[in-house]
Amino acid sequence: MLSLQDCQALDRADPLRVLKDQFVCPPGVMYLDGNSLGVMPKATPGRIRQVVEQEWGQGLIRSWNSAGWVDWPAQIGDKVARLVGAGPNELVVTDSTSVNLFKVLSAALAMARHDAPQRDQVLSERSNFPTDLYMAQSLCQQHGMRLVLVDDMALAPALSERVAVLMLTHVNYRTGAMHDMAALDAQAKAKGILTVWDLAHSAGAVEVDLRGSGADFAVGCGYKYLNGGPGAPAFVWVNAQHASRFWQPLSGWWGHERPFAFTPGYVPAQGIARYLCGTPPVISLAALDEGVNTVLAAEPLGGMPALRKKSVALCETFIALVEQCCADHGLRLVSPRDAAQRGSQLSWCFDTPAPQALAVSQAYAVVQALMARGVVGDFRAGDGASQPDLMRFGFTPLYIGFETVWQAVMHLKAVLDHREWQRPQFQQVQTVT
Amino acid sequence: MLSLQDCQALDRADPLRVLKDQFVCPPGVMYLDGNSLGVMPKATPGRIRQVVEQEWGQGLIRSWNSAGWVDWPAQIGDKVARLVGAGPNELVVTDSTSVNLFKVLSAALAMARHDAPQRDQVLSERSNFPTDLYMAQSLCQQHGMRLVLVDDMALAPALSERVAVLMLTHVNYRTGAMHDMAALDAQAKAKGILTVWDLAHSAGAVEVDLRGSGADFAVGCGYKYLNGGPGAPAFVWVNAQHASRFWQPLSGWWGHERPFAFTPGYVPAQGIARYLCGTPPVISLAALDEGVNTVLAAEPLGGMPALRKKSVALCETFIALVEQCCADHGLRLVSPRDAAQRGSQLSWCFDTPAPQALAVSQAYAVVQALMARGVVGDFRAGDGASQPDLMRFGFTPLYIGFETVWQAVMHLKAVLDHREWQRPQFQQVQTVT
Repeated sequence: MLSLQDCQALDRADPLRVLKDQFVCPPGVMYLDGNSLGVMPKATPGRIRQVVEQEWGQGLIRSWNSAGWVDWPAQIGDKVARLVGAGPNELVVTDSTSVNLFKVLSAALAMARHDAPQRDQVLSERSNFPTDLYMAQSLCQQHGMRLVLVDDMALAPALSERVAVLMLTHVNYRTGAMHDMAALDAQAKAKGILTVWDLAHSAGAVEVDLRGSGADFAVGCGYKYLNGGPGAPAFVWVNAQHASRFWQPLSGWWGHERPFAFTPGYVPAQGIARYLCGTPPVISLAALDEGVNTVLAAEPLGGMPALRKKSVALCETFIALVEQCCADHGLRLVSPRDAAQRGSQLSWCFDTPAPQALAVSQAYAVVQALMARGVVGDFRAGDGASQPDLMRFGFTPLYIGFETVWQAVMHLKAVLDHREWQRPQFQQVQTVT
Repeated sequence: MLSLQDCQALDRADPLRVLKDQFVCPPGVMYLDGNSLGVMPKATPGRIRQVVEQEWGQGLIRSWNSAGWVDWPAQIGDKVARLVGAGPNELVVTDSTSVNLFKVLSAALAMARHDAPQRDQVLSERSNFPTDLYMAQSLCQQHGMRLVLVDDMALAPALSERVAVLMLTHVNYRTGAMHDMAALDAQAKAKGILTVWDLAHSAGAVEVDLRGSGADFAVGCGYKYLNGGPGAPAFVWVNAQHASRFWQPLSGWWGHERPFAFTPGYVPAQGIARYLCGTPPVISLAALDEGVNTVLAAEPLGGMPALRKKSVALCETFIALVEQCCADHGLRLVSPRDAAQRGSQLSWCFDTPAPQALAVSQAYAVVQALMARGVVGDFRAGDGASQPDLMRFGFTPLYIGFETVWQAVMHLKAVLDHREWQRPQFQQVQTVT
């Protein structure tokens, strides 16, 4: 049996606990939603003030050079690269994850068409994040290819000679289930299939070794575990072997070999710079830079392996406490029970139907009731069939501690024990990202 | 002959002069580069602080609803619509100009392929802004079409039955020459040609009547005359007749009919919302909103017609003063002399070669020497043939007054009269956007 004192002892023994001082954690909030939107670093407001009031306000157009704005997509990209096992000059921050996915999947399809024209399928997972599927749907339509969606377990057998590209999100946004990237990259490579990885729920949360695994393309999100702020720019990485081989179709002027020569014909820059497109969003990039810095601050304390170790311990503690305190409420862990097979989040569903007719799902109402108590997680609707409605809790090891996990589970216990979720105010449907 | 006193009298008589109080204008800077990057509104730092420290910092994920972030792309879009003759629900702010151009040109080509499959050309202007040409080049390659580039005067005769889309920038980034949008839209429509307009140098600077002119598609920039900050989100407009007809290929989740239903199949939203793609950049949107507000503040004072009238008067004053004070230095106005045919900028070149060999172009060195005196314009290199090297000066009527024009020309006169531009420090090449 775990006690509050045990959790407090875990916090005292945690070498990463000092990293929380980098963040503004609103009082009374137990924030288990860093997988949707990371918490604000303390350094961000000052940095933004500097960029807005000094660099823009006073420096104006001159700051593209004098403040170095022009170099930020590559410089911040080099920092993100250290978190995902990529090398310098291999990764840039730009655009949204969706737009970057369009770029890399386009390039992958162009490569496949050139190297293996008989392949006519893009393979992905049915429960992949929708925007990835929508972009793939669009590109498959354009290229006359077929988007084949299968369940997790059916992926390996589906890696056939017809598959041009395997496109996956490394950590599933619903369940937190994590693919074995190295194994899938190796299997894909053995069959001549290119891989495209979405690291939205991985970068800053779990160890990723893009170079070592032999991946071909990757994109990821700046506003989740990288703490870059709402709608932060995303990142894009291309294996250095491919980066200069093909154009990506969003051939904007920032991806040109000489953007400021203003020549009428497009000549792509060498390497990853050709994955840039329009003018970079300077203010948002500054916020992203500060967010990435909070993760890099873990490097002297063990870096991503240490963060991962803590993340696993936080999740294990949450599971143990839920099993200990919330039995008999029909809760079921949907995330893999084996920590090696999941990312930094836990998803739960209710196995039994709610005891009375509700306007909303029980999982939805419980998430709302928890929110009223300051425990912020989120709800993801199921499909009414095999995929259940979920309560989703993310554990960002940079700023979540074991006592917070204890408190969150105690609130969950209270919501369930006292049936707080049945109150009418928790059954108002809202849009939540 | 115009005197300083005349310029001061023009300022006193200017009903728009109060609008300058909305901006932080750095002391000693005569900023004639608002066509590259608009000046910072005074309201912006406070608004960003609110968004970052309160809405993100305290509200966290909840602010997507409680602060209304989710609605900003449409709400700010409706504001921009008022500046370009578009209606409500017809325009959104999102992504970069380059990415938005890709969306609308893709949709236009899909429409053309459906309605007039024999047409195989995209027609544009040779001196169009490069990113527009690069994106068109990419899409023409994809669609098996030809990008035909002609000079301004050859556009009308080139509107043949082979042309699917006429893609133009309304105000030329180099020369400031402005197309007659209504006339070209009418000519194009008469020949069954779709029009795509880039309003980067128009929105907030000149009167635009998208609906009235019968245009089909338009995009534009948030960081020039809309004062949205460096790399601000751009906008995209589609004629309501077409908006729901075709997908644009960047079919991300924010363009889905029900983004938060997380369904695996893409169903585009009705109307302009389908031109959204990834998660919107909230902090940058807040800055853009404040920028757009500074232009809307002119509405009680006559709005865009009044701004345009002042812009023309500023340009005419600059021309008159240059002719009066800087004769005999070989300066030639490259922008159209007729105000009705140009936007809110003036470009000049040197007609005679520099009197001695220089490491850089004379125009470049003069721009650098002016910069050292606080007069910020910019340099655009020519092509070594028909297009000369340019000195470019933008006149944003919101914050530029007639006395500033006087001062700027006096500095130009001093730089030329004393040959300051020959000093070595003005011949260091830098990248300037």
